[in-house]
Amino acid sequence: MDSGEIFLALVLILLFARIFGEAAAWLKVPPVMGEMFAGILLGPSLLGWVELNSIIQALAEIGLILLLFEVGLDTDISKLAKHGYKASVVALGGFIAPFFAGFALSYWHFDLPLLLSLFIGGTLTATSIGVTVRVLRDLKRHRSHEAQVVLGAAVIDDILGVVLLALLYEFSVSGGISLSNASEVFIFIVIFMLLAPIVAKLMAQTIGRYSQHSKIPGLIPTTIVTLVLFFAWLAHLVGAPALLGGFAAGLALSRRFFLPFGSQLLLEDGKFVQRIERSMRPIIQLFTPIFFVVVGLSLNLQAVDWGSSSVLWMATLFTILAMLSKLFGAFLIKESNHFRWAVGLAMIPRAEVGLIFAEVGRMSGVFDHDIYAVMIITIAATTILPPFMLKWFYARFGHHLPDKGQ
Amino acid sequence: MDSGEIFLALVLILLFARIFGEAAAWLKVPPVMGEMFAGILLGPSLLGWVELNSIIQALAEIGLILLLFEVGLDTDISKLAKHGYKASVVALGGFIAPFFAGFALSYWHFDLPLLLSLFIGGTLTATSIGVTVRVLRDLKRHRSHEAQVVLGAAVIDDILGVVLLALLYEFSVSGGISLSNASEVFIFIVIFMLLAPIVAKLMAQTIGRYSQHSKIPGLIPTTIVTLVLFFAWLAHLVGAPALLGGFAAGLALSRRFFLPFGSQLLLEDGKFVQRIERSMRPIIQLFTPIFFVVVGLSLNLQAVDWGSSSVLWMATLFTILAMLSKLFGAFLIKESNHFRWAVGLAMIPRAEVGLIFAEVGRMSGVFDHDIYAVMIITIAATTILPPFMLKWFYARFGHHLPDKGQ
Repeated sequence: MDSGEIFLALVLILLFARIFGEAAAWLKVPPVMGEMFAGILLGPSLLGWVELNSIIQALAEIGLILLLFEVGLDTDISKLAKHGYKASVVALGGFIAPFFAGFALSYWHFDLPLLLSLFIGGTLTATSIGVTVRVLRDLKRHRSHEAQVVLGAAVIDDILGVVLLALLYEFSVSGGISLSNASEVFIFIVIFMLLAPIVAKLMAQTIGRYSQHSKIPGLIPTTIVTLVLFFAWLAHLVGAPALLGGFAAGLALSRRFFLPFGSQLLLEDGKFVQRIERSMRPIIQLFTPIFFVVVGLSLNLQAVDWGSSSVLWMATLFTILAMLSKLFGAFLIKESNHFRWAVGLAMIPRAEVGLIFAEVGRMSGVFDHDIYAVMIITIAATTILPPFMLKWFYARFGHHLPDKGQ
Repeated sequence: MDSGEIFLALVLILLFARIFGEAAAWLKVPPVMGEMFAGILLGPSLLGWVELNSIIQALAEIGLILLLFEVGLDTDISKLAKHGYKASVVALGGFIAPFFAGFALSYWHFDLPLLLSLFIGGTLTATSIGVTVRVLRDLKRHRSHEAQVVLGAAVIDDILGVVLLALLYEFSVSGGISLSNASEVFIFIVIFMLLAPIVAKLMAQTIGRYSQHSKIPGLIPTTIVTLVLFFAWLAHLVGAPALLGGFAAGLALSRRFFLPFGSQLLLEDGKFVQRIERSMRPIIQLFTPIFFVVVGLSLNLQAVDWGSSSVLWMATLFTILAMLSKLFGAFLIKESNHFRWAVGLAMIPRAEVGLIFAEVGRMSGVFDHDIYAVMIITIAATTILPPFMLKWFYARFGHHLPDKGQ
């Protein structure tokens, strides 16, 4: 391929992602939706200016791994401990209910294949920490009691979601679903998720200790990206999606992560973690929009069979189901109904994690054009609507909630 | 291609670049030499662990463009004004002499084709600001009078070198050399080099003014990379190598660059330029080692015909010629002989700019395996030896020089 074409494609992707991301933020819609729309606009659905190729695909995949690295980096394990019980109940309820509802509707009502139905269920499980934090911050409720429960639950949901994705990915690669296969993969993934952050942490400490002796600049960006890609490769090797490696590395380098036998290093670590964040942010910010634009580029709305009207019908059904089922977990905890509604509504946004599920489903060949379009519409609806619902809810019922936050 | 393979290749490239870059710095050899060696080790010459593919090639090309962006960013045009006359004489002498010497040896002595001989001459013209600054700083002479002349000359050499490269690149693409063609291309390039920095500066100022209204993080890394790639694409469009666009964008954003009609914006600009540097450094530091490793990967020492011994013989001749011809410019200025020697020796290192010439020559099909190997050996020798020569010279004759620097 001509290198001029690649530069032009990257210029268009980055420029449109920025323009529509900012426009979305202006309209109070989560920016990832704007970036995805930029991809739909540039891709085969509308303008057809950018064609997907292996180079852009590779950059998007690196973007995805770095995104999960950032999610891991922002994960505050101490939050889980604080509001652990309620958060776990909300998370488990809000994980299991959408999964089974999505699976049941697909498998029994729409007669879809088993693996596809499982993938659809999985796509509905995610909760986007990013969107949720953003909306609660806009409402100045991000330090409130319900926000703490929601954030804890979103963290657990993320971990459960990534493990489920790894499991389904392995099924899609091996081509079949068997209980022995599942348990074997599950054990692999659990071992990976337990060992990888510890190994990553030890490696990062080695880098940190070595950093004083480094004689050429750029130690942190190069070595940390190397570390992240190394774990992505390892995850790929054990049969999990590469993004699991990014997540494990991010978790290991997050501020609150510490090794039981290394806690005395926490203080000197703090500065190093800060330096990592400062160097890695621009790189993450550069790559992740490419992923979201590629999600939009992968969608070919012109190839969708709109005549049968089943796509819109399915998308509507899944959207309603996705919203209702997320409320389930919130109504299991012992709190006022207002509290439960606030938590339940805040858990609805799927955004990036839902898009990751959909993209893995598409790339592994499980989702065809129509189902991919259904999922993208469902994720878009469950991401765009909740911020407005939450704002309306707080304006109307906010005074019933215990603390006003800061 | 399997994405696992890409991750592994990138891990190996970044890791080995870091290890051998640091090792080189330890041995007081310019780090780019270590990174290039990492590529020779990983590539077909020795281990054969990493195979070049379109994705790594694209990342290396982006690295090259960002490297030239950084060279442009670090270019201090005010330095030229200060030591302008002497620096210009040294630069022109040190540009013309190696070019004609390299061309004459290739064309008349070795009977090589015209375009190839011109490319060889071009490869010998470059002066590496990076290596020169580094060595003079190690010797604590980087603020001395001779250092200022050398730095000014290196800046002019860089600009002349990039323009020459653009000209030769166009010849290699169009397949022929004609005077009318040359003058047309030359005019194009001059217009580009005059207009591009102004347009880039205006665009950057627009971004800077807009940055207060941005609602999502990551404005600077994404928009500046977009800007750089846009000018790379433009340069490619007018028939120049893409790296010229990176250089023009870097020049526009450098601290000392200002528009004649916008000098009142200089102060508020300062902060913005600083923010750009802070965000862009990690991205540049991540991508550029990939370029230097790819230079090594592109070299196949096993494909070189060592039996005829002409490769080593040519490399030796070119190395001697490259060193002697760079002294020429220094002996044209009115200074003491010690001063002239110090300037001349400091002008010898070719490093990155030489490697860029060689890589463009290889990619455009002008250099075959043997000539590419000859050029790489010549560049390596002229980069590795001068630091030692300069150190010896200053230890022996340093006291004869006017000021001791700081």
